[in-house]
Amino acid sequence: MKEKGLLIVLSGPSGVGKGTVRKAVFSRPDAQFEYSISATTRSPREGEVDGVDYFFKSKEEFKQMIQDGKLLEYAEYVGNYYGTPLDYVNETLNSGKDVFLEIEVQGAKQVREKIPDGLFIFLMPPSLNELQSRIVGRGTESVELIHNRMEAARREIELMSLYDYIVENDDVEKAVDRINAIVQAEHFRSERIAGKYIKMLEVEK
Amino acid sequence: MKEKGLLIVLSGPSGVGKGTVRKAVFSRPDAQFEYSISATTRSPREGEVDGVDYFFKSKEEFKQMIQDGKLLEYAEYVGNYYGTPLDYVNETLNSGKDVFLEIEVQGAKQVREKIPDGLFIFLMPPSLNELQSRIVGRGTESVELIHNRMEAARREIELMSLYDYIVENDDVEKAVDRINAIVQAEHFRSERIAGKYIKMLEVEK
Repeated sequence: MKEKGLLIVLSGPSGVGKGTVRKAVFSRPDAQFEYSISATTRSPREGEVDGVDYFFKSKEEFKQMIQDGKLLEYAEYVGNYYGTPLDYVNETLNSGKDVFLEIEVQGAKQVREKIPDGLFIFLMPPSLNELQSRIVGRGTESVELIHNRMEAARREIELMSLYDYIVENDDVEKAVDRINAIVQAEHFRSERIAGKYIKMLEVEK
Repeated sequence: MKEKGLLIVLSGPSGVGKGTVRKAVFSRPDAQFEYSISATTRSPREGEVDGVDYFFKSKEEFKQMIQDGKLLEYAEYVGNYYGTPLDYVNETLNSGKDVFLEIEVQGAKQVREKIPDGLFIFLMPPSLNELQSRIVGRGTESVELIHNRMEAARREIELMSLYDYIVENDDVEKAVDRINAIVQAEHFRSERIAGKYIKMLEVEK
């Protein structure tokens, strides 16, 4: 019997660079994760393919998925819904592959409730000053908005002890190395694999 | 303030190849562990240096160390005592370095009681048949002794779920890679480092 895959959840305060790190994780030639494709109600942009970039849904379909418990997590941004389809995640895990989710802190909280044995990694800015520089660096936000985002980030960071691991994003490639070591190690945790070896002993008795 | 080092304990059934794996761990140019020097009552062999290979002790001194709680673990083999001096381990951990212990299963149990937040790795044979071949392969044991050692190994393997990680020793270099990933990952576990980041937030407030 194949071992079940790991659900890896990468989250962290907005502005920390989750998307950049996720892309760098998948750009490694030895990346062995499946990327979880999100469902969304927003319209496809040019070149985006249904079932590849997103599962594109109407608002009615999306609300039905929520009602039917078909979403591992979801959120609303600027009038559109975004969510993680549960079936796709479960099928991939059952086929023995690891699934990689990069989501907001609120979504990660929902996932933890549904899949407590997932592997939760919190991406951490090297410092709050550095996070502020990154947010300011985008150059599009007003002083008030920056203040609000920093307060939100502080509240998000305070949730970090709910995660299994904390990875500093001082350098994208280093962060990827750390994530890869964590995923490799996690496959050897005895609570995940002792059962397999106990079966082996029984067979060989 | 420097972070405290990790105590890494490698154990597993006798015959699994703990000593070989430990030597391979330390032969890597990037090995960043301190090897814990054991205390022993046996006489130094030619070339062995006190404080380098072992701390050589008289039986009286050793028994005094036991009485004074100066040993993290100890055991008696063929009339001699072997043990891990607690002070050396604590000083090294406090200086921020990781300490690597390779010990028998009984010793590992004693260490777990004294240092529950240590990192315990169980080295696992690929199969019981393979373990038997390795024990037989030494060519020095009688059939009865082999039987007894296999029974002991089975009992030792049944303790594996008390460990944090299980690493298969199908290949020495692969086992070392796995151990290195585990140690690296363990440094990012939130229960070990969340406190550091929480302090950082308070300072920056």
